[in-house]
Amino acid sequence: MPTIVVDVMPKPEILDPQGKAIAGALPRLGFSAFSGVRQGKRFELTVEGEVTEDVLRQAREAAEQMLSNPVIEDVVNVEVQS
Amino acid sequence: MPTIVVDVMPKPEILDPQGKAIAGALPRLGFSAFSGVRQGKRFELTVEGEVTEDVLRQAREAAEQMLSNPVIEDVVNVEVQS
Repeated sequence: MPTIVVDVMPKPEILDPQGKAIAGALPRLGFSAFSGVRQGKRFELTVEGEVTEDVLRQAREAAEQMLSNPVIEDVVNVEVQS
Repeated sequence: MPTIVVDVMPKPEILDPQGKAIAGALPRLGFSAFSGVRQGKRFELTVEGEVTEDVLRQAREAAEQMLSNPVIEDVVNVEVQS
């Protein structure tokens, strides 16, 4: 069955304490390559049947209205999983 | 600055109550195209400088050791953001 992936990230200007905590912990475990971490959400929506233009429109609307909080988050990606 | 994206999802056999709740709410808002929803996490790791093979290896190891719980989650994707 096809899957539509929706990615939601905190807006760049919004503090992300979880990401900050991870960024602080990484070097203590030997991972020194990264200067910052942001944590967001990934949703997988299962579609029965074909991914039509209407299904994609529904996914984009659901992403904006239900899967993200537009005050603090951006929908960064809505795509059919290959 | 380059960014490495890490995607983590609950294992298929693990219950996902957040995904279930979203799947139940979607039709009530008029989004009837989806038969299921799973919710996972997306991390963006910022890299200073070049993404070398060693940086990618660190990202993969951090994904397995720190960004996911291998008992209940799968790392489904580690890639440089284009």
